[in-house]
Amino acid sequence: MIYFVTSNEGKYREVLAIAKKYGLEFEWMKEKYVEIQGKDLEEIARKSAEILSEKMKDKKFFLEDSGLFIEALNGFPGPYSSYVFETIGNEGIIKLMKGVKNRKAYFKAVIAYWDGKEIRTFTGIVEGEISDEIRGSYGFGFDPIFLYSGRTFAEMREEKNEVSHRRRALEKFFEWLNA
Amino acid sequence: MIYFVTSNEGKYREVLAIAKKYGLEFEWMKEKYVEIQGKDLEEIARKSAEILSEKMKDKKFFLEDSGLFIEALNGFPGPYSSYVFETIGNEGIIKLMKGVKNRKAYFKAVIAYWDGKEIRTFTGIVEGEISDEIRGSYGFGFDPIFLYSGRTFAEMREEKNEVSHRRRALEKFFEWLNA
Repeated sequence: MIYFVTSNEGKYREVLAIAKKYGLEFEWMKEKYVEIQGKDLEEIARKSAEILSEKMKDKKFFLEDSGLFIEALNGFPGPYSSYVFETIGNEGIIKLMKGVKNRKAYFKAVIAYWDGKEIRTFTGIVEGEISDEIRGSYGFGFDPIFLYSGRTFAEMREEKNEVSHRRRALEKFFEWLNA
Repeated sequence: MIYFVTSNEGKYREVLAIAKKYGLEFEWMKEKYVEIQGKDLEEIARKSAEILSEKMKDKKFFLEDSGLFIEALNGFPGPYSSYVFETIGNEGIIKLMKGVKNRKAYFKAVIAYWDGKEIRTFTGIVEGEISDEIRGSYGFGFDPIFLYSGRTFAEMREEKNEVSHRRRALEKFFEWLNA
């Protein structure tokens, strides 16, 4: 039994859908865990797993941390994406990017897995652009402003799960688990 | 001997100037420490001091965490003020606040002091407004966009240290120390 620890239901559903394709199942542990501040997502995920492992002991678990990194904004909102989403939201990002020519951005996801003895991390990235307006109603977080091949993640429905940063990180993790 | 732990020179200089008025001196420990993510500044400062105390043992120290909380932006940038300053800066906040009528904001500072045995926190707040433009060149961080009685903190020079959130938190701390 492996636990997936997250308090975010949208994230849980997405991981569940991807795991099914690999014939894998996980137990949802709906819980907030301690995260440190930092600029490096790998370091944050690893440290969070380290702190949580002291409580979980020999129980296996993984957690996932992700962020949207916008080139013209020096990587903002980056590791603080969920706080930024909860405060200024998609509207805030659209406003900050008004008149900005360089629209390049990427989503990054890091999985940190505790096997009862040590922590391993798996990273996935997807490159895209920030749209001029909010579009689509699927997914969660910054999905409605992240353009991938002409559509936002929130317009892509299930197709998002074929190309997303989370899918790419999970793919590496699941292939390693199944090896 | 009490250490003041910060990697921010502007913060150190400000604390030094205020401490002088109380006849107090501290040793500057220029170091970054682990901070957790969270919405509550008191909790973040306390937890940071707790983690650092494991290393400092019976050495006395204090640290200070502060943030700018803008009402119309649901408290953003709040606890992540330094990251937000480093990425989108004052220009980003001005842009986000363009056309927003409610300009109310406050600066909050929390001191966490480890006396070798336990942690105490001291809080200071100063209320003001977000200006329409960047003004003044004193201070640091968001000082040039924080209006207090018609001037920004960055236009107030030394006078800022009479009314600032940091001054108010330090005042409580120093009075408690001198008691």
